[in-house]
Amino acid sequence: MDGLWDERIAVGATELRSSAIRDLLKLTAQPQIISFAGGLPAAELFPAEEIALASERALAEVPMATLQYGRTEGYEPLRALVGTWLGRLGMDTRFEQVIITAGSQQALDLIGRLLIDPGAPVVVEEPTYLGALQAWQTCRPNYLRVPIDEQGLVVDALEQLLAKGLRPRFLYVVSCFQNPTGVTLAPARRRQLIELAARYELPIVEDDPYGDLYYEGERVTPLAALDYELHGEPRYVVYLGTLSKMLAPGLRVGWLVAPRAIFDQLVMLKQGLDLSTSSSSQTVAYYACRDGLLERHAPRIRALYRERRDAMLAALEREMPPEVRWTRPEGGMFLWLTLPEGYNSGELLDRAIEAGVAFVPGEPFHPGGGGTNTMRLNFSFSSVAQINEGVRRLAAAIRAR
Amino acid sequence: MDGLWDERIAVGATELRSSAIRDLLKLTAQPQIISFAGGLPAAELFPAEEIALASERALAEVPMATLQYGRTEGYEPLRALVGTWLGRLGMDTRFEQVIITAGSQQALDLIGRLLIDPGAPVVVEEPTYLGALQAWQTCRPNYLRVPIDEQGLVVDALEQLLAKGLRPRFLYVVSCFQNPTGVTLAPARRRQLIELAARYELPIVEDDPYGDLYYEGERVTPLAALDYELHGEPRYVVYLGTLSKMLAPGLRVGWLVAPRAIFDQLVMLKQGLDLSTSSSSQTVAYYACRDGLLERHAPRIRALYRERRDAMLAALEREMPPEVRWTRPEGGMFLWLTLPEGYNSGELLDRAIEAGVAFVPGEPFHPGGGGTNTMRLNFSFSSVAQINEGVRRLAAAIRAR
Repeated sequence: MDGLWDERIAVGATELRSSAIRDLLKLTAQPQIISFAGGLPAAELFPAEEIALASERALAEVPMATLQYGRTEGYEPLRALVGTWLGRLGMDTRFEQVIITAGSQQALDLIGRLLIDPGAPVVVEEPTYLGALQAWQTCRPNYLRVPIDEQGLVVDALEQLLAKGLRPRFLYVVSCFQNPTGVTLAPARRRQLIELAARYELPIVEDDPYGDLYYEGERVTPLAALDYELHGEPRYVVYLGTLSKMLAPGLRVGWLVAPRAIFDQLVMLKQGLDLSTSSSSQTVAYYACRDGLLERHAPRIRALYRERRDAMLAALEREMPPEVRWTRPEGGMFLWLTLPEGYNSGELLDRAIEAGVAFVPGEPFHPGGGGTNTMRLNFSFSSVAQINEGVRRLAAAIRAR
Repeated sequence: MDGLWDERIAVGATELRSSAIRDLLKLTAQPQIISFAGGLPAAELFPAEEIALASERALAEVPMATLQYGRTEGYEPLRALVGTWLGRLGMDTRFEQVIITAGSQQALDLIGRLLIDPGAPVVVEEPTYLGALQAWQTCRPNYLRVPIDEQGLVVDALEQLLAKGLRPRFLYVVSCFQNPTGVTLAPARRRQLIELAARYELPIVEDDPYGDLYYEGERVTPLAALDYELHGEPRYVVYLGTLSKMLAPGLRVGWLVAPRAIFDQLVMLKQGLDLSTSSSSQTVAYYACRDGLLERHAPRIRALYRERRDAMLAALEREMPPEVRWTRPEGGMFLWLTLPEGYNSGELLDRAIEAGVAFVPGEPFHPGGGGTNTMRLNFSFSSVAQINEGVRRLAAAIRAR
């Protein structure tokens, strides 16, 4: 920094912080470190051949749609395909309400810019997804935190807030296999929450990147589907989906389903952001998925991740001191570990990295601070052997305190 | 709009407007209309086969870099390649100062978020690029307008502003074959401007998407290269480039070269925007360009666009009433036409579209209003036959006033 630029930085950008995770990822790139820190899909499952074929077809059959500037809302066949998927989840959403975004991250950014003023109240789960906090850094909302338990967001606690007359801009919720805790909002709470939204006129941003990664039972019905069921169209819920977990994050293709009341403004905002999502990513995603690749591919992903989750739960059971607790996610990519009071996972991290294992300390997931004795562990990226060894190292580092 | 959402819209987003151009593009998609309105590269020149080959190679050789999450700064081999191109322009910039963006549009968005507060002074050319105004809509700067003439920005007029003690956040300039006028900042003025920047500590955002589209003489040296020459590194100039005009806009790949003083903040902001630019777009762009595709391809683009520019200039000479004036760009994709005082190009547009020809009225390019008797004409997208017929129709519509 120097005077020339320093005095010109916008108020919202003066206290930018890099994501703790992305900094950590650089640190843990060394091969001797077993990393439970990232949120990466298992690379060995990327359907590279199918994507190569899709790319060949897209360039041969729709070269203009692939290479020319495209519509801001997205490539229509892809929007329609997303509409079909949403229909299966109970949202009979026509593609007119779908915007293709550069991953869910861009959808979060769009929402922040449309709905957050400095100091405006925004309700988040505690802990909540770090990427959302980062997307909204420059918007500087006033975060109202509602706790979660093993059933997800404690809706009664939210109602207490609303009953006081608070009018939050929206509630942000990762509804399935939450990042960072792995917890899922239970069906009864979903119903309770969607009724609350209507009663108190509360917009909800439902971020659902992990919903298809279920390892027990069936796909949980999104809040957005309940909203649709009650109102015949998306009314209170903005729904975010992505191909990053089920196809490949490198394409940067996600989507946002918006109520009609804000659809046009979101499109206008996106025009200013990037004109449109990469046309080539969109046509390749469409050609890869239109013949049911995801439907064929999803069971493979679920089988592998289930095995890894089971391995991590078993290793934790075997290795951890008795006073350590952790969540038992029914899907997704993460679990959440709580050390006894007084432990500091940030301090533990240095020792853990020395011992050859990494995780993300829990504090950055708490917008108001706290959670110093917690940590997030990823189980999707490492092999079962790495999980066994990594948990052993982690337990040793905890004991060595 | 309804109460639920209406009362929750952020202050900066309450007056969003769609780009006049993108709305117009929908209107002019009918095949019977000859459109000079867009800013589209000629689709027949997209090197689709080379890109298909590049895509195949990228997926075979670097599947992880293509499909997995990538670094926010961009794919390193592509950053290094961009560094090589910049070196040829006189910026011996190491790739450490390059960020790969989702087209130049995202670079503009990043700059607005880093450097603009509501009401803060930002200097723009008058007229200026509409996409920049759109990118900065929610930032709501106070635009200070400096006129341009056939030598580009009138640097003396800028100096008068600065001599009064004004401290703008930055000057935004499209330095070569400007959008919308086609005018290029003359070399002597570049030197004068870069000295002014140092004297008054004025940051400059140099947007250079068209610099390689020169149809006379040689590539004009960017302001950023003069900055580099004087200071040994980028100090006053943030430089924006893109593959949209020379390869294909659908990839959404551009770059930003930033002074070290703001580099890290730009990267942190971009993390919140989209984590990274499409990995697949980046590796495909790299594999397409690493063996010199752009160097082989550029002469073909220049030859075609030169022919079309010449055709449009000749048709204007032939068809237009004597009181109509226009610029004679030495490159780029646009020229600027001025009707006699009292004419309104916005009103003319309806008549022109009825007559089967479209353009962009000049007023939206003026952040403070004005330019009602001007219009932007694109010459890169239409064939010579279309240009001849379109200019004939346009001249008839003007005469029919």
